[in-house]
Amino acid sequence: MTDIRSHHISPGFDAELEHLTGHFQRLGGMVAQQLQDSLRALVTTDRAQAENVCARDQEINERDVAIDRLCMSILARRQPAANDLRLVTSVGHATFDLERIGDEAAKIARICVEMFDAGISPPVVDQIQAAGEMVLDMLRDVLDAFARLDSVAAYEVARRDALLDVSCEEIIEATLQELIAREQNLAGSLRMLWIPRALERIGDHSCNLAEHVVFVAKGEYVRHMSLRRMAKRVQS
Amino acid sequence: MTDIRSHHISPGFDAELEHLTGHFQRLGGMVAQQLQDSLRALVTTDRAQAENVCARDQEINERDVAIDRLCMSILARRQPAANDLRLVTSVGHATFDLERIGDEAAKIARICVEMFDAGISPPVVDQIQAAGEMVLDMLRDVLDAFARLDSVAAYEVARRDALLDVSCEEIIEATLQELIAREQNLAGSLRMLWIPRALERIGDHSCNLAEHVVFVAKGEYVRHMSLRRMAKRVQS
Repeated sequence: MTDIRSHHISPGFDAELEHLTGHFQRLGGMVAQQLQDSLRALVTTDRAQAENVCARDQEINERDVAIDRLCMSILARRQPAANDLRLVTSVGHATFDLERIGDEAAKIARICVEMFDAGISPPVVDQIQAAGEMVLDMLRDVLDAFARLDSVAAYEVARRDALLDVSCEEIIEATLQELIAREQNLAGSLRMLWIPRALERIGDHSCNLAEHVVFVAKGEYVRHMSLRRMAKRVQS
Repeated sequence: MTDIRSHHISPGFDAELEHLTGHFQRLGGMVAQQLQDSLRALVTTDRAQAENVCARDQEINERDVAIDRLCMSILARRQPAANDLRLVTSVGHATFDLERIGDEAAKIARICVEMFDAGISPPVVDQIQAAGEMVLDMLRDVLDAFARLDSVAAYEVARRDALLDVSCEEIIEATLQELIAREQNLAGSLRMLWIPRALERIGDHSCNLAEHVVFVAKGEYVRHMSLRRMAKRVQS
């Protein structure tokens, strides 16, 4: 991350920013792992793994608060300006997105536990696995773009979100059709619908992360921008 | 909001913070209006009103970016500390929640337009209206709590979220049962399911707003806390 930032008169400040972004990246890695494990639990109907995901959510929550405290402390003591200010406030916002991704992964795991316990075999698992891999790649790539402050790579993540949304809509429809065809405990199976919806939201959060990357790297707000306009900004 | 904050040596800074919180409250009022209008469009099957909600979303997006710029500018120029720092960063985070509430309202309005155009009469409208009023009250009350930095009132909003979640789950189930019973264009009607889900999410964002109020007023992180622990913090 140091290629874009200028070095500071106080070497302690550089170290502190590295410390902050290190914490952020570790949280990102944990959250990606949670998502991967929740999807694996679904595919392999592994109740213990799903319960592990639920149990680990608390640690993510604690790290989220710790990073937010760190951002506040840097703002108060170091009074950063320009690039550094953008970095610190964006890490604060982006941590919120990571924490919400962790929540969605825990939600997927909780739904798995409920369905396994109710003896319901989850439908359309192959399609969910494919969409899950798509969103996991988006998340990993945007974390990598954050580490390198690479706006173009961030844009590429945002561009893939439309494909993910289409997949998730298809999964929702296929799930319902299959649940109705089976005439199985419909009320119990309905919660299954939240899994593709959770994936869709994780895609949205990954896009938010991409926008933060562009903001830190370029100083440009690309929130609410069309992909076409965003593309121009990242290439300028 | 001035009762809690100390007055500053520079009267310009006080005015700037008032300006910021004034913008925030106006955005909150607009977002609440968007939600109210989208629900009224659903109940009265008023396509023109639903389209108006969609069209006004752009203005909310612009105001969101403007408030974020203002926060960054205050952080850079004024280098606030303690209470003021908490206020400015929390308004930044809270604006994000308001903008997402605006998005959910626009989504409800878009679903209305699609269903009206497809000739589908939306099911369980009475239940949705009741849940909509519940969440609209939560949003208005938390904005009011923000204006007064009233932690206890903020906590009361967070407490109501569990009731809202139960209502939304019931609506989802009732919607599906009715859609299946009607044997009407199922695929076209499925999007209707996102309306209770949107209400549920607006409730979540209102809870986030409540947590920001407690953070500004008390300097306490209540994110991820149980309601019981949160209750203790706000009363201390």
